[in-house]
Amino acid sequence: MASSSSPTETRSPELRKDPINNRWVIFSPARAKRPSDFKSKSSSENQNSNSSSSCPFCFGNEHHCAPEIFRDSPDPNVDWKIRVIQNLYPALSRDIGGETEGHPDGEKSGFPGRVVPGVGFHDVVIETPVHSVHLSDLGPTQVGEVLLAYKKRIEQIKERDLIKYVQVFKNHGASAGASLSHSHSQILALPVIPPTVSGRLCSMKEYFDQTGKCGLCEVQPKDLLIDETTYFTSIVPFAATFPFEIWIIPQYHSSHFHDLDSEKAIDLGGLLKLMLRKLSMQLNNPPFNFMIHTSPLQVTDSQSPYSHWYLQIVPQLTGVGGFEIGTGCYINPVFPDDAAKVLREV
Amino acid sequence: MASSSSPTETRSPELRKDPINNRWVIFSPARAKRPSDFKSKSSSENQNSNSSSSCPFCFGNEHHCAPEIFRDSPDPNVDWKIRVIQNLYPALSRDIGGETEGHPDGEKSGFPGRVVPGVGFHDVVIETPVHSVHLSDLGPTQVGEVLLAYKKRIEQIKERDLIKYVQVFKNHGASAGASLSHSHSQILALPVIPPTVSGRLCSMKEYFDQTGKCGLCEVQPKDLLIDETTYFTSIVPFAATFPFEIWIIPQYHSSHFHDLDSEKAIDLGGLLKLMLRKLSMQLNNPPFNFMIHTSPLQVTDSQSPYSHWYLQIVPQLTGVGGFEIGTGCYINPVFPDDAAKVLREV
Repeated sequence: MASSSSPTETRSPELRKDPINNRWVIFSPARAKRPSDFKSKSSSENQNSNSSSSCPFCFGNEHHCAPEIFRDSPDPNVDWKIRVIQNLYPALSRDIGGETEGHPDGEKSGFPGRVVPGVGFHDVVIETPVHSVHLSDLGPTQVGEVLLAYKKRIEQIKERDLIKYVQVFKNHGASAGASLSHSHSQILALPVIPPTVSGRLCSMKEYFDQTGKCGLCEVQPKDLLIDETTYFTSIVPFAATFPFEIWIIPQYHSSHFHDLDSEKAIDLGGLLKLMLRKLSMQLNNPPFNFMIHTSPLQVTDSQSPYSHWYLQIVPQLTGVGGFEIGTGCYINPVFPDDAAKVLREV
Repeated sequence: MASSSSPTETRSPELRKDPINNRWVIFSPARAKRPSDFKSKSSSENQNSNSSSSCPFCFGNEHHCAPEIFRDSPDPNVDWKIRVIQNLYPALSRDIGGETEGHPDGEKSGFPGRVVPGVGFHDVVIETPVHSVHLSDLGPTQVGEVLLAYKKRIEQIKERDLIKYVQVFKNHGASAGASLSHSHSQILALPVIPPTVSGRLCSMKEYFDQTGKCGLCEVQPKDLLIDETTYFTSIVPFAATFPFEIWIIPQYHSSHFHDLDSEKAIDLGGLLKLMLRKLSMQLNNPPFNFMIHTSPLQVTDSQSPYSHWYLQIVPQLTGVGGFEIGTGCYINPVFPDDAAKVLREV
């Protein structure tokens, strides 16, 4: 009996604190299936079914999109491989004119609080001209080119003093927040530093003050390792917030994603592709998000020894309820070493 | 033309910082429908369809449940009106024995991080013996009795030194995290103080240090007001994270929900019922969560002047994507004063 049982069946629940994000996670195997039995309830393939003919991101439909910022067309025989465009429904306004001033502030509303005009950039990266091709279908070099498009756009944006932070993210599948199925990612440039980013910096500073070391340089993956390449390591983090969450961490110390060069971009492209394929095979092509956790555009000399970017991939398998909204703690039914073992072997 | 347009159509996006939770929210009406056009895509009525005969929470099926903690049966003619039971699949273990010690810690996993045994309580409050009755169908006194059951259970739990925080929450509808449709709520007692709670205390301390006042006592609802009773005020908060989010705030200063007396419980019961009915009517019976944001069980004399509990209701209308996971910032398409106006009038 014992030999055929899953390792989680014998483990008691425990709370782990993620030292990078200063967040408690409850590992609760009593609520779990076996780690190898996890599957997405609905494949993301069935979630967004807009067709190629009506898709504004497809080759030939460029006139249905908001203005283009730049395109990547290295081959003279193809019109474009990657397009970076404005979001047709931007969350923030590019318009830095006077009209954004003079809104009711907290005092006027009788509620103490700060107000900042909603100025920033909200762009879309169309990763391929072909409707049915997903990011993980592209070769390592092509995925690397998408990463280099992010880098190029961030470098343009960082010239604007107003912008404090740039969040790059991808939503794949409707339940992960994607409104169109054509493979794309988004870049949102904000006039404030988001709370998770300042919290992460605080937390990494605390670790640095105690040990003199960067918390992410110090990771020795051991049984949390999924794979590694020349420059990057992929792991299930020790206090993973979500089941089968993956972090891809540069082995070299670097505060900013946008300092990535072409060689490292192709190396990362290959590892990102591999991780997306592993999640898809193991978990029935689940909806997923990935986020590039970089540092604020302005990093001081004292912050740079402990700020270290990484890429987080989250398959959407479990919903969020009142406990998570209320406490900011998450319940993860799969212990990270069990998830890493499954992902190593698939 | 102008007179028939929604007020949001003419507003530019803005970022607001919630001074209670220290969180940025992007208000982005460009992504919105008219506030009055918001509806849930799928009514929560259709989401959980387990029948009464197979429902462990129904009268007569008590033997299918985990052990009962107590029942409320004020009328000798009925067996019970409210039951508080253990969760059959608890996130935390009630077992405080030695077996919870000696787990692999962060060091062993090669990842710096803290580990705490997963000890605590995870209880369920069955709000009615009747399968088809929802919380908002009960009278104000009966809703008040459910609130008093929370209070009684918290008072039992707080005798255990190990427990630092008690989160009461309700998930209604599958996409809000409910696995059974029979009306119930949950109580999760934690051995740590969750990050949102310590963050909120920090934020309210900062406001108190600057002004000498409690941030929630200071709220002057004005155009954010939905309704008020003798002891409570319901508003859409100035920096609402979610569209049509509601806060019910005691008008009297109090750190802990569990200091509520019977008179105030009935008063709150009536207002909670009204708010749930308004959301249901306006938004097509949406899935929702509510959370009671109370203070840690141990509040110091210096913390008590600025710690003030409230109840948050969140209809689940918009999904969470990579931007929200990455930054902790949310995008809300409905300005709070517009949402409050709609909810006042419905």
